[in-house]
Amino acid sequence: MAPTSIDATDDVVTLVNVFTVTPETQQRLVELLGRATEEVMRHRPGFVSANIHAGLDGTRVANYAQWRSVEDFRAALEDPVVREHIDEITTFATADPQLYRVVSTHHA
Amino acid sequence: MAPTSIDATDDVVTLVNVFTVTPETQQRLVELLGRATEEVMRHRPGFVSANIHAGLDGTRVANYAQWRSVEDFRAALEDPVVREHIDEITTFATADPQLYRVVSTHHA
Repeated sequence: MAPTSIDATDDVVTLVNVFTVTPETQQRLVELLGRATEEVMRHRPGFVSANIHAGLDGTRVANYAQWRSVEDFRAALEDPVVREHIDEITTFATADPQLYRVVSTHHA
Repeated sequence: MAPTSIDATDDVVTLVNVFTVTPETQQRLVELLGRATEEVMRHRPGFVSANIHAGLDGTRVANYAQWRSVEDFRAALEDPVVREHIDEITTFATADPQLYRVVSTHHA
């Protein structure tokens, strides 16, 4: 499987969701997001990729995900199983989901 | 130039910096980050890539960047020209820089 690539010319919408956790709950969220993505999100129409990141200081988890369109992403959030996962997450973490477009890329 | 790829087996540290702006200042930050990255950051030792994202609702800008090591990233922040750029940004935006490792990747 080709890894996620970041390209300003790709026709995707990017979700960057930064979760605030504690060092005690970080691993629980990493596992929950990975499982929810594999079992549910990646089978939704318009899903392209998701990449789960663990903050080095233990207080954050970030999801960098790509969707075909804003509409596809919003439709996935309406899925009852997705809503269950979100409800579980909000019992121990805060989320800050934002949608973006890539405007420039820079390399060494 | 190959685009940034996200891979849990790559030996990089990831910076996700989410800036809060207003719709009036978003474009200014996008341009400032692009210029600072091209002129300064990408020439610092250990820089791998940076990808500037504009929030669709106008209130965020996100930088998804890769560095060879935490030490390289911290050293770049000590550069006086980098500090000038950071000082200019903080006059009109708030930043939330966090360092991460990639723990899992998922594809459709």
